This record gives sequence, structure tokens and C-alpha cells, in this order.
Amino acid sequence: MTIIADGKLLAEKIYSNIKAKVDKLDRKPMLAVIITNDNEAGKIYVRNKQRACEKTGIQSKTIEFDADVSENTLINKIQDLNNDKNVDAILVQLPLPNHIDSEKILNAISPDKDADGFHYINAGKMFIGQMPKTIACTPKGIIRLLDEYKIQISGLNAVVIGRSNIVGKPISQLLLQRNATVTTCHSKTKNLEYYTKNADLIVCAIGKPKFLTGNMVKDGVIIIDVGITRLDTGKLSGDVDFESVASKASLITPVPGGVGPMTVAMLIQNTLDLSIQYSE
Amino acid sequence: MTIIADGKLLAEKIYSNIKAKVDKLDRKPMLAVIITNDNEAGKIYVRNKQRACEKTGIQSKTIEFDADVSENTLINKIQDLNNDKNVDAILVQLPLPNHIDSEKILNAISPDKDADGFHYINAGKMFIGQMPKTIACTPKGIIRLLDEYKIQISGLNAVVIGRSNIVGKPISQLLLQRNATVTTCHSKTKNLEYYTKNADLIVCAIGKPKFLTGNMVKDGVIIIDVGITRLDTGKLSGDVDFESVASKASLITPVPGGVGPMTVAMLIQNTLDLSIQYSE
Repeated sequence: MTIIADGKLLAEKIYSNIKAKVDKLDRKPMLAVIITNDNEAGKIYVRNKQRACEKTGIQSKTIEFDADVSENTLINKIQDLNNDKNVDAILVQLPLPNHIDSEKILNAISPDKDADGFHYINAGKMFIGQMPKTIACTPKGIIRLLDEYKIQISGLNAVVIGRSNIVGKPISQLLLQRNATVTTCHSKTKNLEYYTKNADLIVCAIGKPKFLTGNMVKDGVIIIDVGITRLDTGKLSGDVDFESVASKASLITPVPGGVGPMTVAMLIQNTLDLSIQYSE
Repeated sequence: MTIIADGKLLAEKIYSNIKAKVDKLDRKPMLAVIITNDNEAGKIYVRNKQRACEKTGIQSKTIEFDADVSENTLINKIQDLNNDKNVDAILVQLPLPNHIDSEKILNAISPDKDADGFHYINAGKMFIGQMPKTIACTPKGIIRLLDEYKIQISGLNAVVIGRSNIVGKPISQLLLQRNATVTTCHSKTKNLEYYTKNADLIVCAIGKPKFLTGNMVKDGVIIIDVGITRLDTGKLSGDVDFESVASKASLITPVPGGVGPMTVAMLIQNTLDLSIQYSE
């Protein structure tokens, strides 16, 4: 029997819990989002995030800049938000235009208002195994989903495909902290199937539709599919060839409706956590 | 033919290069070391570090505190050193007494004077793949040694045994950045031999003498032995059973004389790098 892990349902459950907490707060948490107006895909994500805020009673505001905005203008805006007592969490929607140094912008956000957990200090704490204020939303959502389905992560042979700073590297660290034996694979990996065929748990985060196929995995494998790509047919596809892999997996996340909703839910959770960090 | 990688010789070569650079500097770089007087093993390391400073013309000073020193006293001292223009690099010799929060102390050091690269900001930058001011000395020394022996790291199946913050986790990241496929193993790993028998490169950093034996590795493997333990016989031993493993390895680091001298050399390199960070 293959379990199809319902990220959408779990996200709704998390929103209910957050809403119950927010309802009790006199001052509602506020998420500020910065985006440049050339970022069409980002605008869709930002709308999803706003909707999630509305569901839970969290306030949000979006500040849109022209694509030719200067680094200094962005940094000044972030500093205003850092100093604004009504703003609890700040998110800069990536990607930024090419003339902007994204790392510089992300590190201008106060670590105490870092909704995405991308600041060096928060990434460094996570790496060292100290609990930072916030952890990157997608890896955090993956762990939350595995916990919901009572997956015993400890001792698993986990293979992560992809080594991005926002998914591959941090999920490798979080799985390691939970006592999995973790292999991080990537475009330079030789003989990828050697790793995937022996894996108890595979996280695929490379953005190549239907990349992981049934012949590459063993029976009973747990599959977390992070990729989401719109095919020429208009349909959304994950990095995993769902049909061939699902028939062998013990648990698999669908696309859409798996990791995606969890990522947004963790952003809202991070916003709430940042708003109550000093009052608890 | 098995190459026995000579860390001692390479360290001497590095000291010569550093000395040539230091000789040209008007103001000689200064390393400040903080240690508590209960740390007997640490005192031996500190003496080695002082000797390495002397060889290269780098200045060093050691500030020793009683074992019952307060956190505040240590932090005040570190802040003085942060503000002292004659001090380029600060090292706190671990372990600290139990009543001291080591992370708090290490993060009181300015990231710009962080000789060991343990500050959250430097660890976070390394994790994200940005070049921090300094990288932890043992992993940095391992990469330098592999480069010296012209090991092509890219594409290797690398297995790291141990997940400490000072060796296992950072060397896993550095090997990943050099395009190895990296598996991090540890005490909760099931069937360790499955990983080690297929590895092209093994880094062993767990502090268990003669843990890795010849029957656990494949022919031609590259072995980096980080452990160093004094046996009841008085002899020093690495984590690797040298005789049985060396007969199969293409390259192996001895203990002593392998990784140890490289760690000290990288500390001296870090001190020089920190001293010239603003003048280049």
C-alpha cells in the first residue's frame, strides 16, 4: 500500500493551529514581502503567501519595486522594516534582478525578522545544530510532513538529490540531525542509481520533470518530491515520475499538493514564531 | 604503491611561504589565544601553535584564566581583543569548563578575527558556499593536503565518518563544494561497511583508535585519518588501523604527521589572512 502524503491537508491543519494562536494575540503578526515587478513567477507565490496569511489572521504587506531598483534602495527599505515594531517577519522574494547581490540583500534582514531563515547567522546556527530563530521553509516543511506520517528518520539511508542552499543542503543537515545517514547527490554525481537504488528515503530537488523513475528506486522507498515544473501540456510535474515510482514507494508526496503547501505553511509558522519570540 | 601523505612536510612548506610574506609586513600579525588552566590537553596544542607562530614571525600571546572564570569575564576579554588593533586573530582553546556556554563565547569573537572559523556567520557563509574570512582549520587542512597530492575530488564517492561541528560536518560541505558525492556517517549509521566498502575517499573523525580496518575498504581508497588518541602503551593511534588499511589504500595520512600538522598550519594561515584582509 502506497501512502500519498497529503501536504495540502496538513497545511490546513497547521493553519487552524496558527489561527487559534493568532486569535488570542492583541497585536496580529505582520509579514512584509519585498518583490521586484519583473518577477512574474514570484508574484504567484506571493499571492499564495498572502492568502495563507489571511486564513490565519496574520497581516501581510507587499512592497513592490521596479526591476531597475538599486541595492541601496532595497537595503534602506529593509532597514526601515527591521526598525518597524509592527513588522515581525521580512521576506525578499527571489530571484532578484541580476544587478542585485542577493546574498547582500538577504543578510540585510535582521536575523530576528528573517522569515526564510536564509541569513548567515540562522543558516550557521542550523548547520551547527543550534536552534535558529527560523529554518528555511521547504526543508522545515519536509521534516514536518515526515513527522506527521510518523516516519522514523533515525538510521535511514537518506539520499538527497540536489544541493541548493534553499533545499538540498539544509534538508541534508536536518536529516543528519535526525540521525539519518545522508548522501547528497548532484549533477556531478557518478552512477546516481547506485545511491538511489539503495536509499530508504529520497528527497529530489533539482527541477527536472520526471527525472527519478521507478527503475531507480527500491521497493518500500519513501519519496519526497520538491520539484515543480509546468510542462508544455500545461500540467504541473514534479522531479519524480509519479506513476512508476509510486507503485514501489511506501510513501510519496504528490505534485502539486505535497511539499509546496508545506513550504507556505512553514513561512506562516515562521512569521508567528518570530512575532512571539520575545513574549514567551 | 601506497602514498603516505606527509602532512608534516607540507606544513613546513606552508610555514616557509607564510614566513616570506610576514617578513615583508611592517606590523607582524598577532594571534591571541584564550585558555582555561584546567585544560591540560589544550595547553599542549597551544604550545604547538605558539611554536608555529615563532617559525613564521607571527606574534602570539596566551591569556590564561582560572577554571572558575565567569562567562562575562571571558566575553569582556574577547571584546577587548576585538577592539585591540594589534590583535588580528583570536582563538579560544576548547573545551571550556562545563559552566561556560561555549557557543556564546565563540560567537563573541568578531567574525573578522575568528581564527578557527567557528562563528555562526563564518560557518553560515561556508555552508552557503560563500567564501568566509576563515574556515575551520582541520577541514581546511584536509582539502589543502588533498590538493597537494593532486587528488581529483570531483566525482568521488566520499564517505565522512563523524559529524562534529569542527570536522565531520564542515569537511562534508567542503568536499561537496568540490563536487564529491558525500555521505556523512555517524554512530547511528546502520551497516557502515556498506558505505565504506564502496568509498573512493574516506575521512575518519570519531576518536576511536584503529576503528576502520582493512576489510572495510576497497582497493585504491584514499584515507584521511583525523583521530588521534594516546593508547595505554603510550603510542599515538589514529581512527584507522594503519597497517591493514594502508595495504589497500592509494593514499593514506599517518598519525602522527598527517592531518595534525596541517590543522596547526591552517591556523597560522588563517591568522595571516585575517591580518591582511583589509590591506589587499
